[in-house]
Amino acid sequence: MNYYPEAMARLIGELQKLPTVGPKTAQRLAFYFLKMSVMDAKGIAQSIEDVKSALDYCTRCGNITDTDPCRICTDPRRDRQLICVVKDPDDLLAIERTNQYNGLYHTLMGVLSPLNGVGPQELRMSGLFERVEKDHIKEVIIAISSTTEGQATALYLTRQLTQKFTVSVSQIAHGIPVGGDLDYIDELTIAKALEGRRPFGP
Amino acid sequence: MNYYPEAMARLIGELQKLPTVGPKTAQRLAFYFLKMSVMDAKGIAQSIEDVKSALDYCTRCGNITDTDPCRICTDPRRDRQLICVVKDPDDLLAIERTNQYNGLYHTLMGVLSPLNGVGPQELRMSGLFERVEKDHIKEVIIAISSTTEGQATALYLTRQLTQKFTVSVSQIAHGIPVGGDLDYIDELTIAKALEGRRPFGP
Repeated sequence: MNYYPEAMARLIGELQKLPTVGPKTAQRLAFYFLKMSVMDAKGIAQSIEDVKSALDYCTRCGNITDTDPCRICTDPRRDRQLICVVKDPDDLLAIERTNQYNGLYHTLMGVLSPLNGVGPQELRMSGLFERVEKDHIKEVIIAISSTTEGQATALYLTRQLTQKFTVSVSQIAHGIPVGGDLDYIDELTIAKALEGRRPFGP
Repeated sequence: MNYYPEAMARLIGELQKLPTVGPKTAQRLAFYFLKMSVMDAKGIAQSIEDVKSALDYCTRCGNITDTDPCRICTDPRRDRQLICVVKDPDDLLAIERTNQYNGLYHTLMGVLSPLNGVGPQELRMSGLFERVEKDHIKEVIIAISSTTEGQATALYLTRQLTQKFTVSVSQIAHGIPVGGDLDYIDELTIAKALEGRRPFGP
């Protein structure tokens, strides 16, 4: 890397820390920053710092937020007895974008993964149990993707919740995506879709 | 985008300006920045600003540099009568990495592209002509990729240089990449390789 001036080499090194960015992409991005106007480059550098200084996780639900508790947790129009459990804030935002859900959220910040040393203690589960008890939650919807680890997490949560509290626990439906062609869908998804079939008609 | 806190939405917007970064990648990178330590995030933000403040283009050869003229232009061990013409600093660095070239460089900052309004005036050509005349350059190697526009640029440069000065002009060889399997190489490259064949043997 000694072909680059030092500031350039450092930026390329920093960019390579990002996900999906290898040496080639890092170099291309670095050259792009170099060609940008000073104002644009300052803008992007400032935004990165702002994200770190202005944002944090909501202590109640774990959503990313600039106020604590977050806007969803304090929204009086939302159903305060319904909690949707998601893996992380990315998934929370994916559900928000549908505009179809009107309850609160709880992010676990991961899924159970014993091989990687992630047990129930490492996830934000106790916070969920507290909320279910204190806020008299009626229903918990588990919206965790159906990987092996995701399903183990969902199963563990369901058992804990139904044993400890009188709350109904449901899971989002896994099946064929809308517009999905059966031909191109893996067998497991089709099996799940068959298993989750519902009576047809009004 | 109103699902994100404002600082997050702004960062995602800024990241989308980068090449190869679409909405999904921008969101993933933004979340990654959020999860980074404050120090790492500050480091990357600082590097971006540094690249803009510490680096500029060498007024002589157009290389990116933190001194002007750049380290290559002032290196006394280099052959000062040989200039390699490249499209941009990326290509210059690609040649530097081979450790096989010991002359100076001249970057054009683009290639002729009449459709996009890029004529000889828009490129750093007059600077090249000046250098060839003043510094008594003996040979100019044209190292521009063999696209239509690249070849038009090479042809134009060769004509101008040979008409105006007594300098020999050569072009890097286009042919089969080392280790390249003929089966997988396009016809034009094979044609170029045939055309550029050289006598075999010592």
